Formats: sequence, C-alpha cells, structure tokens
Amino acid sequence: MSEEFDQQFILSQQQCEFLAKTFHKFDPDENGVIELEDLAKVTQEILGNEIRSSELQAIRLKGEGCATEGYITFGDFTKIMREHMSSTTRWGGLKSKLQAFVGFDSIQDQLKEKALKRGFEFNLMVVGESGLGKSTMINTLFRGTVSRQSCIQHPEPLPPTVKINSVCHVIEEKSVNLKLSITDTPGFGDQINNLKSWEPILEYVNKQFEAYLNEEVSINRKKYIPDTRIHCCMYFIPPTGHCLRPLDIEFMKKLDKHVNIVPVIAKSDTLTIEERHAFKQRIRDDITHHKIRIYPSGYETDEEDEMVANAAIDKFLPFAIIGSDQLHQVNGKKILARKTKWGVIEVENPAHCEFVNLRNMLIKSRMLDLKETTDKVHYENYRRQRLHGPRDISDALSQPDN
Amino acid sequence: MSEEFDQQFILSQQQCEFLAKTFHKFDPDENGVIELEDLAKVTQEILGNEIRSSELQAIRLKGEGCATEGYITFGDFTKIMREHMSSTTRWGGLKSKLQAFVGFDSIQDQLKEKALKRGFEFNLMVVGESGLGKSTMINTLFRGTVSRQSCIQHPEPLPPTVKINSVCHVIEEKSVNLKLSITDTPGFGDQINNLKSWEPILEYVNKQFEAYLNEEVSINRKKYIPDTRIHCCMYFIPPTGHCLRPLDIEFMKKLDKHVNIVPVIAKSDTLTIEERHAFKQRIRDDITHHKIRIYPSGYETDEEDEMVANAAIDKFLPFAIIGSDQLHQVNGKKILARKTKWGVIEVENPAHCEFVNLRNMLIKSRMLDLKETTDKVHYENYRRQRLHGPRDISDALSQPDN
Repeated sequence: MSEEFDQQFILSQQQCEFLAKTFHKFDPDENGVIELEDLAKVTQEILGNEIRSSELQAIRLKGEGCATEGYITFGDFTKIMREHMSSTTRWGGLKSKLQAFVGFDSIQDQLKEKALKRGFEFNLMVVGESGLGKSTMINTLFRGTVSRQSCIQHPEPLPPTVKINSVCHVIEEKSVNLKLSITDTPGFGDQINNLKSWEPILEYVNKQFEAYLNEEVSINRKKYIPDTRIHCCMYFIPPTGHCLRPLDIEFMKKLDKHVNIVPVIAKSDTLTIEERHAFKQRIRDDITHHKIRIYPSGYETDEEDEMVANAAIDKFLPFAIIGSDQLHQVNGKKILARKTKWGVIEVENPAHCEFVNLRNMLIKSRMLDLKETTDKVHYENYRRQRLHGPRDISDALSQPDN
Repeated sequence: MSEEFDQQFILSQQQCEFLAKTFHKFDPDENGVIELEDLAKVTQEILGNEIRSSELQAIRLKGEGCATEGYITFGDFTKIMREHMSSTTRWGGLKSKLQAFVGFDSIQDQLKEKALKRGFEFNLMVVGESGLGKSTMINTLFRGTVSRQSCIQHPEPLPPTVKINSVCHVIEEKSVNLKLSITDTPGFGDQINNLKSWEPILEYVNKQFEAYLNEEVSINRKKYIPDTRIHCCMYFIPPTGHCLRPLDIEFMKKLDKHVNIVPVIAKSDTLTIEERHAFKQRIRDDITHHKIRIYPSGYETDEEDEMVANAAIDKFLPFAIIGSDQLHQVNGKKILARKTKWGVIEVENPAHCEFVNLRNMLIKSRMLDLKETTDKVHYENYRRQRLHGPRDISDALSQPDN
C-alpha cells in the first residue's frame, strides 16, 4: 500500500525546501547524510510538538532499516518522511499556508448533517443475576421505559437456562435520533449450577459479529450495514461487600476479549461509605490480578487527553450505582430518588452514588468511542480469527484485469 | 441478516399496543386482518410523514409477498413493521418518549471531536489540455500554491504520453486539518493522436480502488485505510463556443462509471454572455444525448432537500469559470481578478462567472458527499466487479465454529 502511494505522491517545492533546510542544519559538512542518532531531532523539528512518541518510535525503526553505518542519506530521509506523511494529517512545518479563508471547515457541518439524517445506533447489554436492578438502571439511564417489556403479557417464569432478549427503541433528543437496543440476559447466575452460563452470551455476541462480517464480505452489500454488535456490556456485581465471586471472574474473563465490559456495583445503597470503599478496592485488585480487561482503562489510546480522561474514570471503576425510576420531591424539586425511613437517596447526586459518573461516561463522553472500540478492536479480532481459517480471504481475489 | 435480527428483536409493550391500536382502526370487524390496499395507509399513520415513498413501496412489496387473498394478518403486519424498523431510525409514532433530558445528543460533538483529531482527506483530479488554467484554478479554489510544483527544478517538457502526478498538502482552517491531494494529468489531449488518452487515467483511478480493496480484505488491516481514491474529477472543457468535442465525450463516457465528474468551461472570459449561454446549453444537450453521468445530477438521492439542491446546482452545470491567483485593487478591496484593458474580471463575483458556485459545491456543501459517493457508488461498483471473479469471496469464510 505505501509503495503504491509513494509512486504518485510527489513532494511540493515548498515541502522539499523545508525538508532540505532542516536536514542541512544537522549536516553542516554537506555530506548529504545525517547521523541516525539525530533522526528523531530532525523529525521533531519538522513535525513540531504534534508528533506522538509512538510515531517517533516508528520513524526511528524505519531509519534503522535504511541506515548505513549509522548514517542516513537525504534520499532515505525524504522517503521516511513521505511514508509518515501519508498516514497522518499532523504535518507541522510541512503544512501549506492559505492566503485567505476557503471554507472547507464546513466539512464538519456536512458530517454532522449526514449523521443526523442517518441516526445513531447503540447496543447495550446488561448482565447480572435477577433482582440486581438491571431494568431499573436502564430506565434510569435513559429516563423512560426502555428496558425489556415484551408484548408477552403473562409474567415470565424464570428460564431454565440463560435466555437473551433484545428490545429496540428509537429515542430523540435535540433532533438526534438514537436507535437504542437493550439486550437482557434473564437467567444468568440464577441457576443452581451456573457452569458455563457465559456461553450463550458469548455465542450471542459472536453471532452479531458473524452477521456483520457476512454482510461486509458479500458482493452486493448494503449501503449501511445494520449494526447489531454489542457496543457495551454492563456487568452487575452484587453488593456482597466481599470480593468478586468465581462466577463474576469467569464471566468477565470469558467475555473481555469480545466486548467492552463496564463493571458496576449494583444496589450500592446497601453499603456504608467504608464498606463501599473497601469493596471497590478489592474488586479492583481482583480485576488486576486476573488480568481482566475492562473499559476504558484496558484499551490503549494514542490521544493524550483521552489518557487523562481514562485515568479519571478509572478511579471510579467499578461504579457504585443506585437506580430509581421514581420521582420524589426534594427541596421543592422533583428528582429521581429512593425514599427510605432514614433519608432520601438521590440517584443523580454525586455525593450519594456514582450514577452520574456512569452516565457521563456511557452517554455523554464515550458513546462513540464504545462503538469505535467495538468496531476496531473486538470486531477486527473476531474477523481476524474467522479469516485465519482454511485459506486467506485475499486468495479469493483474482488479479486485476486492466 | 434480517432473520438474524428478527430472532432477538422483541417489540416493547408500548410499540406493540400502538401497532395493535392502529391496526384495529382498519379492522373494525376484528377479523385480525386488514386489506392489502390499506397497508400503505396504516403504515403512514404509524410512521408519520417522515416515511419516504421508496420505503412505502418496499413495504407494499413485502405486503404483497405475504398477503392471502388480498388480506394481511396482524402477525404478518408486525413482522413487516419490525423488518422496516430494523433498517431506519425514522420511527414516527413508535418512538419512545423520554421523561427528561438525557444528553445523548452529545454524540454529535463526540463525532466532531473524533473527526477533528483524525483529519479529513480529499483527493481531487484535474483533467484537460495544457493551457486551460488547471493549476491556476486549483490555486484559486484553495487560495494557495497547492497545485503541482514538484521539486524537479527544470521546466518539464511536454510528456510524450499522458502522465499522472499527485501532490499532497495538509491545509488547516479553524483547526480542521484537510489532507488535500491534487492529481494532475499533464499530456492529456496534447498529442497529435489522442486515441485512448483516457486509458492511463482510468488505470490510475482503478489502481487506487484496488489498493483500497486489498487493504480492506487483508486479515490484519489498518485501523483507518488510507484513502487515495479520487473523490472528484474536474474536467476542463475548452471555451470553443461550439459543442463537446469527440475527445471530451470519449473521456467522460469512459470515466463516468468510475469517478464523480464535474465538467467546467475553462477560461470562460473568452465567451460573451450569449455565447456562454448557448455553449452551456449545447454541452448540456450533448451530455444528455450521450448519457454521460455527471455529478451531482447523475446520482440518486433519497433526501428531498438534496434533490432540491441538486436541481439548483444542475442549472449551472457545466460551471463557466475564470481563475486567477493575482490580487487586484477594486473599490479599495483586494480581490482575485484578471485585469484587462477593458475592465476587471472579478473571479469571486457571481455576476462575472460561476467560480463561486463551483467552490460552494466542491468545498462548502458537497465535499463529504463526493467522498461518500466515491465510497458507496464507485468503489462498490469496482469491488463488485472484482469479486465476481473466479469465485465468491464469501467462500473463503469457513463455517463459524461455535
């Protein structure tokens, strides 16, 4: 690919002069070579502070590949720079100047408008034993009766095995249409023997990947592939106050390579401040010890601001939450709360529980990132494993006939 | 796919009741059936005015598929509705209500932020004989020296065949980074015998598709596939005042299935008002007669506002343009213009030429659509043809092993 690109990509005079000038600074003898050691410095001088350490690393590696006795020629240097430039838009000093306003920044608005017309999809899964308030939490999160309530009228008996149900809603806010699908897993952890109760859930997750993959590789594919892949799996930990149970560990370990897992402590109003603190610490230790990958801290990011944000979210994990779909009057305002004989627990009060932190992450800051991580990490993993089957998919392509 | 989706997608109680209520209106005898004739009316009542005629058509077809003696049962009706709901977010009366503000509209800002960090790519190609002002036009469009000026210092002799050169620039406006690649085709139409001078250009366009396809089907693909596909091809028609020449027709007919073609009349300051008008009309007739597909009118759209906008743009096609990278003082303001002994031709004055219309379309309103059309129409066409090779690509997928 990069060779293909090289063939057609000529440096402009301006870019060429800028590269030569900077190169010359580090080659005062005009031998046409610089020391390999200086490569990082030269690159940084050209690309400015926008460059990331991972990129500098990659450039350094390329330099090592083409250096002769620790020296790099100008030809090789421009080749390295060109290859790098083809993969990023952070060009620093190589950027071209415009003499006046052109207006291509409106591509942002074009993007927004297209996305508005199409609407967004978000698929959320909740896993946990019955009675932990999963449906209530979903209704609290989205302020409506969006949780599982199928048209089957009679109360369902507890299923003998784990079942999987999805309910789909389109909700609208400020003319943004969101197709929200809530997948519930009644029966999980409710059996006498919960051996392999994660299996039907993993199977479901993979089935969505398979459906997406089948559409993606088909010859006459849809313009927009319907996305039923699970973008986020909220795992409800019962507020035992002890530590993670074997069932919790098994579930998260089996699923963490397939879906973004966000662990929450359900019904955390049963824990005192000290209990909650100690419980969270023990869960965190368990997660580290068992190398469970949770969202967002288990996922790498190149962006520094995201790293800072992840560290801030990380402090709260697992979110100790309380759900309620009942409104109560507190100080003259109607708020979501649970009224007890000894006080009112305000769901949206950060001093009472971490529901607001959870909502901010899920809805206000990371909804798109959850979708992208599902697509770029989990789906790609699935695809890679599926295609490493009997033969390479690229074999199916004949040679171009032009 | 839709069957897979059906399995997991349960209607909520609210949705189910709404469907039943509307169905009942058209089935007063409570036979549990409605007439096929009423299907469109029932659907419209449920989905509201948001529904498009193409969608009504599809629902009608589905209804015909499952009707018995002109009647549709409630079961079949909910199935049709569910299938339709899975492919759109315009749900009308089936939308779920929220009791309070949730904040998921911020997904728009999340989208914007992600796009900003990543930057945009736009690949523009200019085709036309030398001396028609292609480089000047590109520099006028982007207000800078962004056109071909490679680091080769000596003036290039006219190439003996059509050559293809690309120059890449990153330009920035309001912190939006745009990687702009300008592909030039020196030598096109400049030979004594211009037979098949479109061939190297088509080959180049397809080579970019092939590179993209190879990356897309590879097992370990890049997170973001570098997009070198040509998003728009500006074809420069010489201001002869007659009609399209055989060379123009041949080029556009050969390329119009592979790339978005925007025809422009170059150096239109050589035409009087009447000449320009008559020339444009003759070119439009030629385009219609030879069934040449030009952007945007040759591309279907479902959106009504886009249809209106296309019709407005269509009136101006081919854009009669004048380019200039020289600033001249007019009424105390410095503007892009060409100064002649008989007056000053203002490039950005809509009364003088249609440069502003061209710029508005290319940059301010359709940049993203040009990219999407390339991806969803031209690239898909290329992919479909390539995969209809020796065997189906989906054969390469083994059966899932879960």
